[in-house]
Amino acid sequence: MADAKEEIANKTVYLDYNATTPLSPSVLQIINETLRDAWGNPSSAHVSGKKAKEVINVARSRVAKMVGAREGDIIFTSGGTEANNTVFWSVVKHFNMFYKTNDSSKQLPHIITANIEHDSVTLAIENFVKEGCCEKTVVGVSSTSGMVDVDRIIEEIKPNTCLVSIMMANNESGVIQPINEIVSKIRKLQCSRDESGYPKIFVHTDAAQAIGKINVDVSELGIDYLTIVGHKFYGPRIGALFVKSPAKDTPLHPLLFGGGQERGFRPGTENTGMIAGLGEAAQLVVDNLETYSMHMRKVRDHLEKRLVESFPNQIHFNGRFATSERIPNTCNFSILGPDLQGFRVLSRLKRTQVSLGAACHSDQQFAPSRILLAMGIGNEIACNALRVSVGRETSLNDIDIVLDDLQQAVSHLQNSHD
Amino acid sequence: MADAKEEIANKTVYLDYNATTPLSPSVLQIINETLRDAWGNPSSAHVSGKKAKEVINVARSRVAKMVGAREGDIIFTSGGTEANNTVFWSVVKHFNMFYKTNDSSKQLPHIITANIEHDSVTLAIENFVKEGCCEKTVVGVSSTSGMVDVDRIIEEIKPNTCLVSIMMANNESGVIQPINEIVSKIRKLQCSRDESGYPKIFVHTDAAQAIGKINVDVSELGIDYLTIVGHKFYGPRIGALFVKSPAKDTPLHPLLFGGGQERGFRPGTENTGMIAGLGEAAQLVVDNLETYSMHMRKVRDHLEKRLVESFPNQIHFNGRFATSERIPNTCNFSILGPDLQGFRVLSRLKRTQVSLGAACHSDQQFAPSRILLAMGIGNEIACNALRVSVGRETSLNDIDIVLDDLQQAVSHLQNSHD
Repeated sequence: MADAKEEIANKTVYLDYNATTPLSPSVLQIINETLRDAWGNPSSAHVSGKKAKEVINVARSRVAKMVGAREGDIIFTSGGTEANNTVFWSVVKHFNMFYKTNDSSKQLPHIITANIEHDSVTLAIENFVKEGCCEKTVVGVSSTSGMVDVDRIIEEIKPNTCLVSIMMANNESGVIQPINEIVSKIRKLQCSRDESGYPKIFVHTDAAQAIGKINVDVSELGIDYLTIVGHKFYGPRIGALFVKSPAKDTPLHPLLFGGGQERGFRPGTENTGMIAGLGEAAQLVVDNLETYSMHMRKVRDHLEKRLVESFPNQIHFNGRFATSERIPNTCNFSILGPDLQGFRVLSRLKRTQVSLGAACHSDQQFAPSRILLAMGIGNEIACNALRVSVGRETSLNDIDIVLDDLQQAVSHLQNSHD
Repeated sequence: MADAKEEIANKTVYLDYNATTPLSPSVLQIINETLRDAWGNPSSAHVSGKKAKEVINVARSRVAKMVGAREGDIIFTSGGTEANNTVFWSVVKHFNMFYKTNDSSKQLPHIITANIEHDSVTLAIENFVKEGCCEKTVVGVSSTSGMVDVDRIIEEIKPNTCLVSIMMANNESGVIQPINEIVSKIRKLQCSRDESGYPKIFVHTDAAQAIGKINVDVSELGIDYLTIVGHKFYGPRIGALFVKSPAKDTPLHPLLFGGGQERGFRPGTENTGMIAGLGEAAQLVVDNLETYSMHMRKVRDHLEKRLVESFPNQIHFNGRFATSERIPNTCNFSILGPDLQGFRVLSRLKRTQVSLGAACHSDQQFAPSRILLAMGIGNEIACNALRVSVGRETSLNDIDIVLDDLQQAVSHLQNSHD
């Protein structure tokens, strides 16, 4: 009885679904079953191998369907980081091959990206720059929309530009980026470039935070590369890369060499269990996206309403703009006040698991988020920011627990000046 | 009842454990539990994140213990292919940095390897050679021992040699390579090189087929890099790389850039469930290696005895030498005869899952194994080869089923000339 009471008291509400999600029960089940029953090496010619191969084929079909792609355009990877790095590796290598055959003057490939990208984009490109293998231009986002300025991207295009990489939705603000518009304007520009012999400009989007929250369709987007990250939509810790007709329409050069799996684009014995799980997670999105999305929006909107009610003169939403859309599960806010820095509030929350921003920066708790600063949010407000991201199972009651928790924390901090 | 009969009739004996192994029940269990209960992002500062981080710490400790390493020397990777590729990437990059700072004359790094290596070694090095980033020397193996010639390796060392990469045990022949001797002779040579300013020669071994079958201890081996592959020892489809004091004593340069996981050596949100599984698989090896090894040896030896009895004038063992040791589970043999090519026999086996050689070459069924040819085995004998690799649960009765199956297949082929 004492244990039960303690358990209730200790029950915490997890509202950090942008950091990672639990596995859906059916995903967990298929992983478990696949690991148990389809453990053969998919390259083996015998029955165990064929069974595993078939599991992978089904999963590939499901993942493809989720993003409106052809099966042949899906490459399984170890995760989003690998998928993103593969894109930059591929376009840089392609550019070098292109210039080696068509132009004796050696130029560097030029990549355009935004100042709100994930580290697996920012640091991968930065590494190429450091190595002298690539030039980059980092375009800012608008302080009135949180969106990247598309015209600025177009202005920054140079003869050697070969890639524009902009995430589909930001992990901290939740702001959905104008990928359609970017692709459309680049395609128009491409028509006039085609005659010049300049390299084609490919467009990549990291859809890690978009999938499972809003509709993501590669054909509608007209995108060349799209990154899929399982653990952001109740799937496993692997990923996939959509590449439009890989190695035909769109460059794809492997980062690894080995046994020829994934048609040589990504060798290494396939992680069949996780791949099956990714397929199941994709199928759930295909079947239930609208339900998931509506539910998360309702809960997130309730949270924001309660925040306004609870901290009427103190609440500042980072990422809520009249002129842009957000993914339905994310709320980034600051409770204004001199002692209410995000890390202070966080340390006082007894029943709530939220974050200051990207999980991979959780060790930098005293610095304001670079994403919020990039959005033009002032240092003091950014220092007070908390990111709440709700999930498929988050209830209105959970939100009320969080609000109680927040009120207690804020009240304590304001009174104690600790 | 009919179903049960059919099931017995259809029951096949899997003897392809060098291609992949099933998960041990306790490995499957810990993966399942971890995926269910420790799904937080290990980078998150809250309780869910900390729990996941702790799971990874425990697993790292277990994997380290299995190979006699320090925890800090273990880097989790997506698999053996990535681990191997990372080694070559690291030494090539290190060599280039070394020469850029200490020597203005630009030389290529030189890597020595053997002609029996896995594709993830062979093709990764070959890619660097193609790109003009590296020189290689491929040393042969002896036809009387299946082992690489250590003196030949030493003879091939040049001023720009920076790596020797030799697998610990071959996946097709099972022959254990003389890693100790290689390391010892290179260390001796290193003493005289140190004054010359030549780069240090690092030694890498891919221990994919050795772990779980023979004792593998990085200190005893004196090795700089060692590749660990989960799915070869009843663990999951991820791997790890041992690097002796990474980025201090031994170069380690990341292939990927991103969120800083694995101390930046291998970014990407950790596959916690699979990592926990790798830890458990490692613990099983720590606890039971001798039992596993003795059992597999007994069963394999029974197989070889039965093969000799069944095909007295026709059996040829590929890899069984008086002067070298084999891993205890592997038997590569050819049943001699004009119609007994491996793929023909394989296609007639009704209850046995074995292979012609490496799983990733199963699509090249008409060509003899390049490993066997490299061992000096004649084309006709190599064409007839089958690789049988037994596992922890393989019984003597399973072997008898296989022998029945083989006898029927051979008898049919010899009589029908199909």
